[in-house]
Amino acid sequence: MNKKGLLIVISGFSGVGKGTAVKKLVEKYGYSLSVSATTRAPRTGEVDGVDYHFKTVEEFEQLIDYNGFIEWAQYVENYYGTPKKFVEDELSKGNNVILEIEVQGAMHIKEQYPDAVLIFITAPDAQTLKNRLEGRGTEDEKVIAKRLKRAFEETDDMVAYDYLVVNDDLDVCVDDIHSVICAEGFKSSRNREYMQNMKSELEVIRNNK
Amino acid sequence: MNKKGLLIVISGFSGVGKGTAVKKLVEKYGYSLSVSATTRAPRTGEVDGVDYHFKTVEEFEQLIDYNGFIEWAQYVENYYGTPKKFVEDELSKGNNVILEIEVQGAMHIKEQYPDAVLIFITAPDAQTLKNRLEGRGTEDEKVIAKRLKRAFEETDDMVAYDYLVVNDDLDVCVDDIHSVICAEGFKSSRNREYMQNMKSELEVIRNNK
Repeated sequence: MNKKGLLIVISGFSGVGKGTAVKKLVEKYGYSLSVSATTRAPRTGEVDGVDYHFKTVEEFEQLIDYNGFIEWAQYVENYYGTPKKFVEDELSKGNNVILEIEVQGAMHIKEQYPDAVLIFITAPDAQTLKNRLEGRGTEDEKVIAKRLKRAFEETDDMVAYDYLVVNDDLDVCVDDIHSVICAEGFKSSRNREYMQNMKSELEVIRNNK
Repeated sequence: MNKKGLLIVISGFSGVGKGTAVKKLVEKYGYSLSVSATTRAPRTGEVDGVDYHFKTVEEFEQLIDYNGFIEWAQYVENYYGTPKKFVEDELSKGNNVILEIEVQGAMHIKEQYPDAVLIFITAPDAQTLKNRLEGRGTEDEKVIAKRLKRAFEETDDMVAYDYLVVNDDLDVCVDDIHSVICAEGFKSSRNREYMQNMKSELEVIRNNK
């Protein structure tokens, strides 16, 4: 069956727990995780190559010039980008690659990789989302209001995703995402070679009778 | 999320074990199974309402006249059909309905229910399929040759199915089909109502701040 790896793009509302879900997908099911490059300074505890590939502005701009990113963007004076080589190497090895990215980046990726699977992680309902943002306890009211505004805007972007997966229980959410990825691998559109082989083999077997 | 039941159409090569897979899907995951109607005589051990709804030719023809079937066909002088009421009642109750049917019937169903999920069960390779047909021990060489010819022709029909699932190990095959059905329920195209609700709820929550 389908031998090529799948590119899985995961987005979701702020506070919905997508980082934790992605971490668990990698641990439990062995997906390859694409690590972004950035020019922002590492925060305490962040490890180069694990949380981000930390780059200088000069390094980053050179990589842009050499077409080293699938997509990149600038937020609040910092660059963020998805290194191309890692993703393409993993896909050609037949590995499924997960990429956690915000909506705009996801759209850029879909343009270049129409076969990519876009998954949006959401909350059971808006009140739950608000409770989670408040429950973090690290953000003040202003930040929460800003995140809710952004979530409101992002509801219009959900339609561009292939799947919506609710994160109510983390383990269920992770297994649901895994089911989606498995199912994508079974799509007949991804298995044309298998069909052709089956046809040729059946022809040989019938003629040998 | 998606509240409406899914119509799942399962076909597959003769000898591939689709009957056993469907039986296990119903037992393990509680899917509703659509039972076909037929005018052929019951075979030893077949139970009316379980294996088929056994009908007289008069009864069957009346049901055709009253639009009682989603699809029907005539093979070797016998009628076979899929009763419409059961399927539509289950779908509107939010239950997922499985329908095991051959390729032509599956195509008729897709025309009427474009949202139906079409799954084709196949073997790992042609030799395995041949071994299984021979292994049954109940068929003579002529019948096996005929089935292989039909399988060869059906390879061209696989492309019309949404998914191909290999039956190598029965339990894996059943779980794979279940994953496909779950994933279909997560499609954003099947969850427009959820998106709309999320948007309205977020608007209310933001305005209440």
